[in-house]
Amino acid sequence: MTIAEAATLLLSQDLFTILCHRSPDGDTLGSAYALHYALQQLGKQSAIHCADPVPPDMVPFLGDGTFFAGNQLPEGHQLLGDNRFCVAVDVADSQLLGTLSQRYQNRVGLVIDHHPSNLQYGKATCLLPTAAATAEVMTALIEAMGVTPDRRMASCLYLGLATDTGCFRYSNTTAATLRAAARVLELGADNDEINRVMFETKTPGRVALETAVMQQLEYFCDQRCAIISVPFALLEKYHISDSELDGLSALPRQIAGVEIGITIREQANHLCRVSVRTERRVDAAALCATFGGGGHLRAGGCTVQGDIPTAKKLLLTQAEKLLC
Amino acid sequence: MTIAEAATLLLSQDLFTILCHRSPDGDTLGSAYALHYALQQLGKQSAIHCADPVPPDMVPFLGDGTFFAGNQLPEGHQLLGDNRFCVAVDVADSQLLGTLSQRYQNRVGLVIDHHPSNLQYGKATCLLPTAAATAEVMTALIEAMGVTPDRRMASCLYLGLATDTGCFRYSNTTAATLRAAARVLELGADNDEINRVMFETKTPGRVALETAVMQQLEYFCDQRCAIISVPFALLEKYHISDSELDGLSALPRQIAGVEIGITIREQANHLCRVSVRTERRVDAAALCATFGGGGHLRAGGCTVQGDIPTAKKLLLTQAEKLLC
Repeated sequence: MTIAEAATLLLSQDLFTILCHRSPDGDTLGSAYALHYALQQLGKQSAIHCADPVPPDMVPFLGDGTFFAGNQLPEGHQLLGDNRFCVAVDVADSQLLGTLSQRYQNRVGLVIDHHPSNLQYGKATCLLPTAAATAEVMTALIEAMGVTPDRRMASCLYLGLATDTGCFRYSNTTAATLRAAARVLELGADNDEINRVMFETKTPGRVALETAVMQQLEYFCDQRCAIISVPFALLEKYHISDSELDGLSALPRQIAGVEIGITIREQANHLCRVSVRTERRVDAAALCATFGGGGHLRAGGCTVQGDIPTAKKLLLTQAEKLLC
Repeated sequence: MTIAEAATLLLSQDLFTILCHRSPDGDTLGSAYALHYALQQLGKQSAIHCADPVPPDMVPFLGDGTFFAGNQLPEGHQLLGDNRFCVAVDVADSQLLGTLSQRYQNRVGLVIDHHPSNLQYGKATCLLPTAAATAEVMTALIEAMGVTPDRRMASCLYLGLATDTGCFRYSNTTAATLRAAARVLELGADNDEINRVMFETKTPGRVALETAVMQQLEYFCDQRCAIISVPFALLEKYHISDSELDGLSALPRQIAGVEIGITIREQANHLCRVSVRTERRVDAAALCATFGGGGHLRAGGCTVQGDIPTAKKLLLTQAEKLLC
């Protein structure tokens, strides 16, 4: 349905449960919180529910909206009451509700999303597949409900827009994305602090790991292929969680002249997860398909049995075929 | 003068010399080339003149407009002819014309700029001090001249907008900046490739230097102060130019918990150049003023006599006073 229709549907309801996808990111959370505050401003009741908690660095930007994580609900809270209208935000597939999937999968009244792959599992779907972020859809939807976002909503929406686009650097950014960002800045979004925390902050452990990994950077094929590897022991040494590894696989391909950048992450179970990033000319998905993986033209992934040297040798054989 | 008045002034002339500042960046070049192409589209003649050449990575985005670097002009080219109208673009002070300063300083008919510090040395000035980039002014000015930017102009303008704002991450970014960026994306700017080259590419030398420098990262004051240093020998070893060091001084302060990030760069002449970046609470300019330097609240610089250990000790004494 259109944004105007979705606005009408939301305005017709009074009691809401807003659902975020598991391992929530800035877009599912920012969009959900903005909707939550907009509904409250309209005098409606709402609560947000997600399988996993809010990442601590995002808490200050989202504010104190009613949020529950996981299946432990406070005594007496009727999130499941039959009279609640459930809205899934940025959730492409009901399986992505994680541990909440069973509870909600047949009860979603409206899905608001931007993923072209959305499975349309809800009773109604408001999907804008050209939008870079669900927050782009939500910015228009909130205004279509007759609410002018306040500073808090504007910051939530900015968080979604900025995190899903690498601060407007990724190729999903369109004129409409930038116009939505302009609108929320005008409404008082704290873009400064959000950018600082989300794009200019690394944990000391991540910095140490990155330095250790980059010391072992290797070039092949006349410097047109670069490989880094992350031994499992290093993750343990620096107490690094998976989310702190974000962006690591982009590093080798960022080096000028490198056409294939490969990142090998050793797992505990004698497996290696491999990320491949390529320049326009080389098909990353095809390279990864050789090893049962897949992906897109410029970013792919696969899993390889064995240790780091084994994975490196296998990947390099394929890379050489493409480059040399 | 207003943008409309500047447009009228430009439309009244036929033969132009467009001036960029020395060590030209994406904003002075992108804005100058966009204006150059717009004037050509209006049937006027124009050439761009700058003390220094175009950085090689920007050449593909700027196109083949008429550009001259330095004081060696091709035989017969009358850049200095009295009938040429000179427009300085993104040049806050005529001294910033570098080696072209003497030639042009009293001949500038129109200055187009966004620096609040602009000395208004031209016969007329179109200054928008709230704009994040001169390209923001130029986008409006070109349309005010009745020209709809084509893809090439749009890419030039995007280059200026993106490079002066760290791809819309810096605090100078406003709603108007994002709207100008939306407009040029709509007109076909190649934001993808520009972002890749300008924000996601490092030379192999820079990567090696950064890794070497980060290995020597030191924490002080309960990890609230972090210091990196760049020995002169390292710059020579990796053949690193000054422009390849961009952004290095941002690294220590990007570590979570660090309130004062200090970067010490050893010079050839027994001097150290020091960059200080701080969190909101600490005044970087005041810290640097102790050593005869200055800057802004969150970014300052100074020069210290002596080697790296000497500079480190001096800076650390001040940092400890502020933090411990």
